[in-house]
Amino acid sequence: MKPIYMDNNATTRVAPEVVEAMLPYFSDLYGNPSSMHAFGGNVGATLKAAREQVATLLGAMPEEILFTSCGTESDSTAIHAAIRANPDKRHIITTRVEHPAVKSLCEHLADNGYRVTFVPVDRLGRLDLDFLYKHLSDDTAIVSVMWANNETGTIFPVEEIARKVRERGIVFHSDAVQAVGKIPINMADSSIDMLSISGHKLHAPKGVGVLYIRKGTKFAPFLMGGHQEFGRRAGTENTASIIGMGRAAQLAMECMQDENTRVRALRDKLETELLKRVPKSMINGDPENRLPNTTSIAFEYIEGEAILLLMDQYGICASSGSACTSGSLEPSHVLRAMGVPFTAAHGSIRYSLSIYNTEEEIDFIIEKMPPIIERLRQMSPFWKEGMIA
Amino acid sequence: MKPIYMDNNATTRVAPEVVEAMLPYFSDLYGNPSSMHAFGGNVGATLKAAREQVATLLGAMPEEILFTSCGTESDSTAIHAAIRANPDKRHIITTRVEHPAVKSLCEHLADNGYRVTFVPVDRLGRLDLDFLYKHLSDDTAIVSVMWANNETGTIFPVEEIARKVRERGIVFHSDAVQAVGKIPINMADSSIDMLSISGHKLHAPKGVGVLYIRKGTKFAPFLMGGHQEFGRRAGTENTASIIGMGRAAQLAMECMQDENTRVRALRDKLETELLKRVPKSMINGDPENRLPNTTSIAFEYIEGEAILLLMDQYGICASSGSACTSGSLEPSHVLRAMGVPFTAAHGSIRYSLSIYNTEEEIDFIIEKMPPIIERLRQMSPFWKEGMIA
Repeated sequence: MKPIYMDNNATTRVAPEVVEAMLPYFSDLYGNPSSMHAFGGNVGATLKAAREQVATLLGAMPEEILFTSCGTESDSTAIHAAIRANPDKRHIITTRVEHPAVKSLCEHLADNGYRVTFVPVDRLGRLDLDFLYKHLSDDTAIVSVMWANNETGTIFPVEEIARKVRERGIVFHSDAVQAVGKIPINMADSSIDMLSISGHKLHAPKGVGVLYIRKGTKFAPFLMGGHQEFGRRAGTENTASIIGMGRAAQLAMECMQDENTRVRALRDKLETELLKRVPKSMINGDPENRLPNTTSIAFEYIEGEAILLLMDQYGICASSGSACTSGSLEPSHVLRAMGVPFTAAHGSIRYSLSIYNTEEEIDFIIEKMPPIIERLRQMSPFWKEGMIA
Repeated sequence: MKPIYMDNNATTRVAPEVVEAMLPYFSDLYGNPSSMHAFGGNVGATLKAAREQVATLLGAMPEEILFTSCGTESDSTAIHAAIRANPDKRHIITTRVEHPAVKSLCEHLADNGYRVTFVPVDRLGRLDLDFLYKHLSDDTAIVSVMWANNETGTIFPVEEIARKVRERGIVFHSDAVQAVGKIPINMADSSIDMLSISGHKLHAPKGVGVLYIRKGTKFAPFLMGGHQEFGRRAGTENTASIIGMGRAAQLAMECMQDENTRVRALRDKLETELLKRVPKSMINGDPENRLPNTTSIAFEYIEGEAILLLMDQYGICASSGSACTSGSLEPSHVLRAMGVPFTAAHGSIRYSLSIYNTEEEIDFIIEKMPPIIERLRQMSPFWKEGMIA
């Protein structure tokens, strides 16, 4: 059974064009780019081209692009770099709805002598900007705010925040893992100092990420050793994946229009129809400022895991939150931070589309979902109580 | 021109069997192993099999295998875990001949409040074990000694050292990046607590590594965030590469015999003939305890980089030291630690073979090297002076 894959915020299909670009670099052009011989050096030249492709996607300079092993490493590298560059500053600002890569690290730092301010969000998932600005201080080493939320797709005004943060001379980092390739990003016009990207969220393979580091930003490497990546990240370059990332960056630019028209229309159809056909269902997040591919829908009074299991029987792949927090029985920290009622947070499903989705798939889901929800609600004591209350 | 690739300690060709195992996991089976749906979960099952394959190669338990992004990350993770698990201990012991991944991190820690003891080696590159044991103290957080040296192939008695270190209740780590797959390793019979491996040194792709962590070893993650790798390494699993790593581990077991007979014989022939045909040439390292695939030969009074350039014209790929330190004009820290004279260290070439090398290639190198060396020596003022002195 070919899956109906609506879980692209968890990971994406590697584009066939990307695989094609990578393939020669496994068994044929396998040299180490740091080697003195032409066999290795030629690979180095292709890496340079990949760096330029990624820089073009971001409106950045090639030397501002650092390749890492994943979005999590990019986030860790950025935050560690900022605190090591500012050893006297002991305050960090982030939000209550970050990805675990930022959240867990900040919680760890809070346990180790740092003061961490978590900016709250409102019922639509919008940041309390006044709260954020009020907490900026001379002791603040870094402000880290994601560009778009992985669970709800809510887009945050990071450009505006970055400007205000820069006015105070504070480093600003954004986890843009979900935003890049879906909405236009131009670092040349931006006040953002560091930006994290993950390859496998934009049709490059798993195991490669990028950290954009604005020229002039004080930096200290997270992985020490060899001189790779201009001395900023030790370890032999993951050549095939970096080359794949370059190609994926090109494709992302070509597909951004499709993402924002056709994919957005598919998402809107899915959302509109499900809300119409399923009683007691609602959107989580800010409908005004949202990624074009994401919808998080709360089906009240039932369990997300049970919904996913029944969807899985039809080959429909979606998620009840971040894949990185799955296995936890707690409802999503993002939905809790938004004040989504317990009975709705538990029954929330995230559909995240990609350029590979079709209208037929959307129609199939629109047909299958209402009976799934109905069936589970018939078995749910909460549903009956909820309807009486 | 097909290269004559003798730089396998820098990186290896990805085995075609490994590429074949990886390929389905890019564009077909691209699910996130942490996902709730079967499409992702099935990938998780294959990862489990890869973990078992790596465990089998090491004589370890699957839950002792942590996948990382490279050998450098494995080394960093091990050393950070040990010092975070022993926050009161401020002493580290390592050697003067480690790979930059360990060396640079230890130097960084030395600049940040740690006392680091670097164990010296003798003229054959053998560790001063008495020195090491004498410096073990109640303040020692970790001892890190590589299994085999990347530049000379010298094998260190890490099993014996690990036993002595364990008697003192101190954590022992070994960077086994060059040893795994070339010599038998059985962690079940060992006192080693943590062991680093790099995929691309044993015919898996670049961008994947392993850290073996003995069950019961106190551990703290280096990358924080999601719950992946049993909560020990956040970040979406690099599924295709991990699956490739598993297949490479299988192949390494199958090929170890060939590595230790045919490849060893090729190396020995290369070495014997070059020493015979080139005056003032000598082996760097311990001829008694050496990897079967490696020889480092000093051609006195000339420059390694110039030798490599002329070799490169014939498509012969080798190295003048670690790829991770290339670009530096300093002679290798390994050869300097061994007391190799400056005039010999500068002209040292490392040939590192693999199962893909053939006798024809060896014969070709034996034919081409002596005139290359002769030509460069004719141009070298040091050579003339050396011959007069």
